[in-house]
Amino acid sequence: MSFRTIEWRDDAVIMIDQTRLPGEEIYNTYTDFKAVADAIRGMIIRGAPAIGVAAAMGIALGARNIIADTHESFFRQLENVCDVMAHTRPTAINLFWGIQRMRQVAEANRDKKLEQIREILKKEAIRIEEEDLTICRNIGKWGATLIPEGATVLTHCNAGGLATAGYGTALGVIRAAHEAGKNIRVFADETRPWLQGARLTAWELMKAGIPTTLISDNMAGFFMQRGEITCCVVGADRIAANGDTANKIGTYSVAVLAKENNIPFYVAAPVSTLDLTLSDGSKIPIEERPASEVTHIKGIAIAPEGVSVRNPSFDVTPARYISAIITENGIVKDDFRTELRRIAGA
Amino acid sequence: MSFRTIEWRDDAVIMIDQTRLPGEEIYNTYTDFKAVADAIRGMIIRGAPAIGVAAAMGIALGARNIIADTHESFFRQLENVCDVMAHTRPTAINLFWGIQRMRQVAEANRDKKLEQIREILKKEAIRIEEEDLTICRNIGKWGATLIPEGATVLTHCNAGGLATAGYGTALGVIRAAHEAGKNIRVFADETRPWLQGARLTAWELMKAGIPTTLISDNMAGFFMQRGEITCCVVGADRIAANGDTANKIGTYSVAVLAKENNIPFYVAAPVSTLDLTLSDGSKIPIEERPASEVTHIKGIAIAPEGVSVRNPSFDVTPARYISAIITENGIVKDDFRTELRRIAGA
Repeated sequence: MSFRTIEWRDDAVIMIDQTRLPGEEIYNTYTDFKAVADAIRGMIIRGAPAIGVAAAMGIALGARNIIADTHESFFRQLENVCDVMAHTRPTAINLFWGIQRMRQVAEANRDKKLEQIREILKKEAIRIEEEDLTICRNIGKWGATLIPEGATVLTHCNAGGLATAGYGTALGVIRAAHEAGKNIRVFADETRPWLQGARLTAWELMKAGIPTTLISDNMAGFFMQRGEITCCVVGADRIAANGDTANKIGTYSVAVLAKENNIPFYVAAPVSTLDLTLSDGSKIPIEERPASEVTHIKGIAIAPEGVSVRNPSFDVTPARYISAIITENGIVKDDFRTELRRIAGA
Repeated sequence: MSFRTIEWRDDAVIMIDQTRLPGEEIYNTYTDFKAVADAIRGMIIRGAPAIGVAAAMGIALGARNIIADTHESFFRQLENVCDVMAHTRPTAINLFWGIQRMRQVAEANRDKKLEQIREILKKEAIRIEEEDLTICRNIGKWGATLIPEGATVLTHCNAGGLATAGYGTALGVIRAAHEAGKNIRVFADETRPWLQGARLTAWELMKAGIPTTLISDNMAGFFMQRGEITCCVVGADRIAANGDTANKIGTYSVAVLAKENNIPFYVAAPVSTLDLTLSDGSKIPIEERPASEVTHIKGIAIAPEGVSVRNPSFDVTPARYISAIITENGIVKDDFRTELRRIAGA
């Protein structure tokens, strides 16, 4: 990869600032867990798997800086660190998954010295990042089998290297198909209001040399209707036990349009995105973000002052619109309720 | 109305500059037909009925400025004026309708003196503008019967006072329901890339005191899915004989989502928007506009330099998604092919 989304280096966390792409390629350095929490909240880093990694690294940073005489004090403070991380963003389950994994590792090593626990947490966070890269490559490998030679693939938002430790889920599928020598093209929805498609997906696919055409979200239907889209591939922020999938706002519309035009609609996500505790998507909490994301672009007003705004950041695509869910452990095409459980090893 | 979209005053054409709204409320003065053509092309004025009026007024201006010794010379130059107007934008049929009406009036008065013909053309252009206001009020009157008390109405783009001589087609329906004392609310799609919804619809509905919530285009499905939208009302740029309707890009997506969620989807347009010469929507020419509309907002880049872009400005909604077409002569609900012909008096 020609960029690094997030890494642990010299006892600090380094992230590429996704609020400034594609105009500026700036790497921020974090040494404080609260700053990492702010970075997640402010979308310096975003994308479900990436914020799982960021939360884990934030906790490792937090653990490093805890001043404690006793294990009890350390663990009480560590719990506070986890709690701060858990209150950054509500929808992506990977955040809570990453936090839970760090919490469990700490608990499992409670009998060790504090210095050792801090080191173990650091190593665990780095392991989560490294594993994510492997997971994405496996998602890509499975998913590429679904992409025909000569395909034009529509994607929404950025489920790319920037949304993960570096290869991507939906874009991992696209990258793997491209690397397998398939002659494919991508249509990228710009993805209002935050413009992840225009700013991030177009940028990273251009870097990867994959032919990409940028469109505004409301054009996807036009190209589907004309037969110019072969299939759709998107990521996920949380997948309920029945396959209902929360993903970036607008995903539901893409899925409905795909179904209406008989175009396969694929979701690509690691198993850590599954939330088998939720029977269906209606239980997934949907974040609403500030009105200014809709009314302003780079600080410039594009709407009348004082206008009312709604800004739900995610929507839920019912499982019946999803042709397949692509995970690192394989592809699930039907009977989601049974098959997702099986593939998760749950 | 608290603004004037277009008017003829002191032998000049005055238009509110829609590229600068809502930030600046500036009225431009035109005394040259080529400048009017540029204003249409550059979307200083837009909206199918409004560009029909603008084309007519542009022709009246052109006729005024023609220097000719003979009728033959005058009519040859007038034909050139019409031709320049016809090459501004391709999709809205009202443009060609306005031009044709001016051409016919000129022809019908060929035996009069040139000064008289110029005066007749000026009066005809003003009449087209005045008629449009009456037409919109009638569209509103019919359409309001379809809007239930307490409704939340979704609209796309701006089919408002700014898109007509001053009351609106889709927004005319909304205005009329509001004026009838119905307690209604509006969700306005921002309508990328040109942001007609954010910049124009939100602005004019706020001025009218109608509660309006701005959303990005890809959020419409979310609110439909949640049962928060009662019905959709949009305008039209051209309606084929079978009811297939070309309108602002994204309209097709709204229609598909509405159907999927069992929400009525209405098209409001004057009879002059009908193109009975086209058997269906596949024959409607679709304008593609510059990439910069997608990659830049107010001159600021929001995408990587050099990215490929597609920018179709309209799409075609097949008649099967349309619950009713609302015209000044009444509402057509089914059997579009027969009923549209009847209502047009054709």
